Amino acid sequence: MVLFSKSFIPTIREQPKLAECRSHALCLKASLLSMISSGVYSYLPLGLRVLRKVENIIRKHMDREGAIELLMSVLQPLEIWKKTGRDESLKEIMVRFRDRRNRELCLGPTHEEEITEIVKKYVSSYKQLPIILYQIQHKFRDEIRPRYGLIRSCEFIMKDAYSFDVDEQGLNISYTKMLEAYKGIFEECGLDFVVVEAEVGFMGGSESHEFMVPAEIGEDILFYCSKCGKYFKEKKMCPICKNELEEKRMIEVGHIFKLGTKYSSAQQAYFLDPQGRRQFFIMGCYGIGVSRLIPAIIEQNSDEKGIIWPERVSGFDVEIIILDVENPLLFKEGISLGEALNKENLEVLVDERKESPGVKFNDAYLIGTPFLIILGKEYLSTKMIEVEERKGGRKFRFSKQEAVNFLKKKYEDELL
Amino acid sequence: MVLFSKSFIPTIREQPKLAECRSHALCLKASLLSMISSGVYSYLPLGLRVLRKVENIIRKHMDREGAIELLMSVLQPLEIWKKTGRDESLKEIMVRFRDRRNRELCLGPTHEEEITEIVKKYVSSYKQLPIILYQIQHKFRDEIRPRYGLIRSCEFIMKDAYSFDVDEQGLNISYTKMLEAYKGIFEECGLDFVVVEAEVGFMGGSESHEFMVPAEIGEDILFYCSKCGKYFKEKKMCPICKNELEEKRMIEVGHIFKLGTKYSSAQQAYFLDPQGRRQFFIMGCYGIGVSRLIPAIIEQNSDEKGIIWPERVSGFDVEIIILDVENPLLFKEGISLGEALNKENLEVLVDERKESPGVKFNDAYLIGTPFLIILGKEYLSTKMIEVEERKGGRKFRFSKQEAVNFLKKKYEDELL
Repeated sequence: MVLFSKSFIPTIREQPKLAECRSHALCLKASLLSMISSGVYSYLPLGLRVLRKVENIIRKHMDREGAIELLMSVLQPLEIWKKTGRDESLKEIMVRFRDRRNRELCLGPTHEEEITEIVKKYVSSYKQLPIILYQIQHKFRDEIRPRYGLIRSCEFIMKDAYSFDVDEQGLNISYTKMLEAYKGIFEECGLDFVVVEAEVGFMGGSESHEFMVPAEIGEDILFYCSKCGKYFKEKKMCPICKNELEEKRMIEVGHIFKLGTKYSSAQQAYFLDPQGRRQFFIMGCYGIGVSRLIPAIIEQNSDEKGIIWPERVSGFDVEIIILDVENPLLFKEGISLGEALNKENLEVLVDERKESPGVKFNDAYLIGTPFLIILGKEYLSTKMIEVEERKGGRKFRFSKQEAVNFLKKKYEDELL
Repeated sequence: MVLFSKSFIPTIREQPKLAECRSHALCLKASLLSMISSGVYSYLPLGLRVLRKVENIIRKHMDREGAIELLMSVLQPLEIWKKTGRDESLKEIMVRFRDRRNRELCLGPTHEEEITEIVKKYVSSYKQLPIILYQIQHKFRDEIRPRYGLIRSCEFIMKDAYSFDVDEQGLNISYTKMLEAYKGIFEECGLDFVVVEAEVGFMGGSESHEFMVPAEIGEDILFYCSKCGKYFKEKKMCPICKNELEEKRMIEVGHIFKLGTKYSSAQQAYFLDPQGRRQFFIMGCYGIGVSRLIPAIIEQNSDEKGIIWPERVSGFDVEIIILDVENPLLFKEGISLGEALNKENLEVLVDERKESPGVKFNDAYLIGTPFLIILGKEYLSTKMIEVEERKGGRKFRFSKQEAVNFLKKKYEDELL
């Protein structure tokens, strides 16, 4: 349970001058982020809570598919990039420097080369395969035009996973696992998203899917058939109903690739098959823009008052507003209700500040906790609690126990 | 519950050639770390589990003292460093570069300047004070001589906390809170440590304490009176008993400073006091070398067979060795015992590999899980389970339920 007066949630009332779009403005106003420099942000406590929620949803779905988490270095020697030639093809966006010992280092914009070196070192036999490794980590891009806050920033957080298989059939299985995990992740994040076949680009490989979130500020374009409800990569007529297609802007939140042996052959990474023959690892790679998910979720889940967090990604599950904190009985009831909810593993924010109801409601709607409990004087006479759902604004009147049960049920993990 | 055969714990049998000390060798052999380049390491899954344990111990003790977690940017504009002059004084160890937009950026070796900018932006009144903010984050140092693995590396993880108070009295309270939190953290990490008054050095300020862990490979030196059992900074006679002092090598794992107004005055960061007058924030800063704690713990907790993890920082709480995995009944019992322990929130590793008992015992002692359960054929007749404590090698014989209760009790959080 967090008391608002003991927290650091410094919301901003005015529209931030630098805000480039709705989600950017809301990230700044709701004090999720503080801008340090163009394209560089710090996560304030509320933003960090949301980030952790998103990360843990990803972990849950990755682990469920048997993927194993590690944490690779940010610094990478440039020599491993020379093996695949990507020291040249990614040159522009790569932050690189020479250290005092004259080593050429870079800040990893991605980790195919490094994971291939690691697996080459430790995996020598088909018996150790298949394996899927992943990490959640800070990445860096020398963006010439950072924008929209965390949508396109110089420093960001990625989930990158890598699969190693003995053959194409194995890769297909790993790839399908990741595809399913991704659907689960984006669903649990409360996103409306589409999956489309995509080109392999600078990653190389044979097959690729993108996970796209429709949003006005999207930088990718798809074409939509309003009749069939389907998305396409190219602007032709709808291949199903021959209807004309509309242009739709999309935010890319995930991208998965069948890489084959592109990296393993360039880096001489092989295992011994049952016949003792050397075979290059058959690889796949699977990325999610973790930090980018936050603005993507906000773009789809907000109104004029603020953010409307989907239940699983909100920094808090429930906010209790104590309207009259000078009333010691009401104050005590508010804290006790918070503790009761906390006991059920709900994360509770209690607004017990000496502020006007207007300020408290404004902040509550702005930071967008899915459920709001309002405790006013009438609670003391009626013992009935008002629960307001942020999304849609539905209001419920409950006894204390009913309120606890209602909210407990909303966050039961079995639901997902 | 993790099955060894489905995990990625690629232990190494041979002594690693590059290992510079006992903890470095054990980090590599037990597959906690993989060396990417000199001073640059990736955390393999077992190392990441240990890291997360240490991080969460730190979080628990920080949160308990009311400190609030955020996550600042790694990239920092050099201009904020120019305000305090530390762009010059920390020049050598700071990784800095110009980006494509010709901005001067650095990878933060520490965050006093950035946190001061953040607090300056959001905190304007004494009513919002005191506040302690902290983060657990990757930091970078251009080390000319990286060594001993994570003891002195170019990329490392720090917990850095910053307190902001209205006056010296407030600072004293915040400082004492952090001092106490630190004692709790290092105790829970299973470290033998000492706290000594220290010099303020390049941080500036008025008072400072270091947390030191005695270890052969330590790079700091203290002087020890074997009669009084006390440590001193200077090599004089013991001021208490006049005994001669011995030189002791120490690893610095934590350092806390009363900074006063050094940063707030340089960065013009002030709040309004009750009389409406501008006052500079009175600051303190509090660091823990999170990644360095791992080798520090290993230096103090190992034997010729491997690591002996203190209970709270081990990647797993219990390891179950199934000796004869070809026996389906024994295999089933092993998995079911693992599930029973898992239900009690214990983290269990089950070694169900088709390997010889020798290989399994070697690995178990090497990776150093505090409790080992050995399931052999005699279990099927006697139904008695052998539990071996890694530290000291004590063996217990329990029924299944007794074993679960015994281990559950060992990890009950109420103990700490």
